[in-house]
Amino acid sequence: MSVLAVRYLGAGTVEAAPADNPPPGPGEVELAPAFVGICGTDLHIFHGSMDARVKAPAVLGHEMSGRITRVGEGVTGWAPGDAVTVMPLSWDGDCPACLAGHRHICHHLNFIGIDSPGAMQQRWTVPAGTLVRLPASVALHHAALVEPTAVAVHDVRRARIRDGERVVIAGGGPIGVLIGLVVRAAGAEVRLVELNGHRRALAERMGLTTWDPETDDIPGLVDEWTGGAGAEVSFEVSGAAGGVALAVDVLGVRGRLCLVAIHPQPREINLHRFFWRELTLVGARLYERADFERAVELVADGTIPAELLISKVVPLAEAATAFQTLDRGGDVMKVLVSCA
Amino acid sequence: MSVLAVRYLGAGTVEAAPADNPPPGPGEVELAPAFVGICGTDLHIFHGSMDARVKAPAVLGHEMSGRITRVGEGVTGWAPGDAVTVMPLSWDGDCPACLAGHRHICHHLNFIGIDSPGAMQQRWTVPAGTLVRLPASVALHHAALVEPTAVAVHDVRRARIRDGERVVIAGGGPIGVLIGLVVRAAGAEVRLVELNGHRRALAERMGLTTWDPETDDIPGLVDEWTGGAGAEVSFEVSGAAGGVALAVDVLGVRGRLCLVAIHPQPREINLHRFFWRELTLVGARLYERADFERAVELVADGTIPAELLISKVVPLAEAATAFQTLDRGGDVMKVLVSCA
Repeated sequence: MSVLAVRYLGAGTVEAAPADNPPPGPGEVELAPAFVGICGTDLHIFHGSMDARVKAPAVLGHEMSGRITRVGEGVTGWAPGDAVTVMPLSWDGDCPACLAGHRHICHHLNFIGIDSPGAMQQRWTVPAGTLVRLPASVALHHAALVEPTAVAVHDVRRARIRDGERVVIAGGGPIGVLIGLVVRAAGAEVRLVELNGHRRALAERMGLTTWDPETDDIPGLVDEWTGGAGAEVSFEVSGAAGGVALAVDVLGVRGRLCLVAIHPQPREINLHRFFWRELTLVGARLYERADFERAVELVADGTIPAELLISKVVPLAEAATAFQTLDRGGDVMKVLVSCA
Repeated sequence: MSVLAVRYLGAGTVEAAPADNPPPGPGEVELAPAFVGICGTDLHIFHGSMDARVKAPAVLGHEMSGRITRVGEGVTGWAPGDAVTVMPLSWDGDCPACLAGHRHICHHLNFIGIDSPGAMQQRWTVPAGTLVRLPASVALHHAALVEPTAVAVHDVRRARIRDGERVVIAGGGPIGVLIGLVVRAAGAEVRLVELNGHRRALAERMGLTTWDPETDDIPGLVDEWTGGAGAEVSFEVSGAAGGVALAVDVLGVRGRLCLVAIHPQPREINLHRFFWRELTLVGARLYERADFERAVELVADGTIPAELLISKVVPLAEAATAFQTLDRGGDVMKVLVSCA
């Protein structure tokens, strides 16, 4: 049987083309992906910015939901028809990071969908250990949001958010909004700073308070909100120099800045402020198993309003157009590819 | 009675001149300072770099030891002749930092010796609450090192050093060396990176292993030392851009960088590394009461080899020359002014 797969061919080009689907090997499971989200990292790859790491042709996709189709030798506890998502990480188990218990930041991490073939195809084979079970109550298109939600859960855990804290988020794309929702679920107050009006309006519909960095006096608003103390926590999710500066400036004494966005280039940081107010900066990358399982719960119980976050669902055959549209930016949150 | 006081008059000029000594007011205590250390901050003031904050004429000095001479109304528990040092901080008690329990980073902190008259004089009046008792066993010239030792104790506490960790310190001036000694006392291993050969030799005499950033292959040495894992903790004490970069580069996964030095200008930081390895940066400023009391113990029990750290003791009348000499840099660690 031949199946369709969306492959990155080089900067600016993806195509949906037939691919083989050999049976799963020992310890592996074959899935029929149902929905696959297009992520910022996928767009970086589409741009050609990650060609040093991603060798074309490459099947993209790591935010997914689906059902098991075939089970390889030696795999127990899973059966065809089971609804699952995948935690797309594979580690070596013996590097210093793994030995210290931080396998998600393994020195030789294989991020499935970046470093090896991803989910944007009609059949996908993965190690059984990457599977995460979905409850029957979760719609599969909602479950495609579990992976980015796990990122948000991990970020919020790294920031050690406590009940009643005041949190500023720089950047209101999918991850920024998901962080806002997870922070709110943890009992903290949120202000989401985002340039794009469509994204601000969407976040407001989810009950998040938003600020516009172009027209709002952010320092004044933070002072008013916190009685001059500054926020306890900020998240930098924008990837922009201005977002970094904002995330530092809004913090009060002993404030914590959780760094989520990828900044390929060095950024100027006001270190004097880190000294003066005894601030903390903490990097956060990916997720651990517990984050993924918590994310399933948050999507299942409606803490994550998936319908509002999904801007559009496109068929596999139109994935190329979706990449081109997303690449131009604009008024969009999350786009899913339907693989059925 | 007229007493001698060392006063900063403007960039490049200090003088020892007679000053009044009115009796201590209610809640105050008058001291006869015995020894006062000259600190990097004092040199910044001498340079004129802090003229916006320090209004000339200003009596400098905040690292001191001495004895009580007169006790003001309402002061209990202290008597003339008591040997003391001073924790030179005064806070407002009702700003957001104080209310959160972080009085040492009060929004309106009065740092005595910078924001109000300091110890470099023959009589000095301070609030009784700033006094810290010295055991009879401590020589007063050693006790002048309690204040910088308290800085090191605070820094090490902020970095949450654990037994057996590997720690790289960027900068081997007095604070860097003191951090190294406190880290070692906490059971961790130290590598001190310092440009100046005299300072490296002195640190080696104290049993600290040192590296020369100009001739040693620091990344290679760190790899060899940690089996490719990277260090658990680094301290940036150099104040230089290169020190910041080094303190980031040496860290392994989940490593903690404790920022001690003052960087008035923004610094470029490799934020990608903070993301990739889930690093933490934590700012550390001054000390709390517990740090000061621990510092007294460390000086008293010889953990801090005070004799090796004190390069020179000069009389009050020669303080101006000492400032000029220190300002030229060179082969020196800590210089004390004797006020007797």
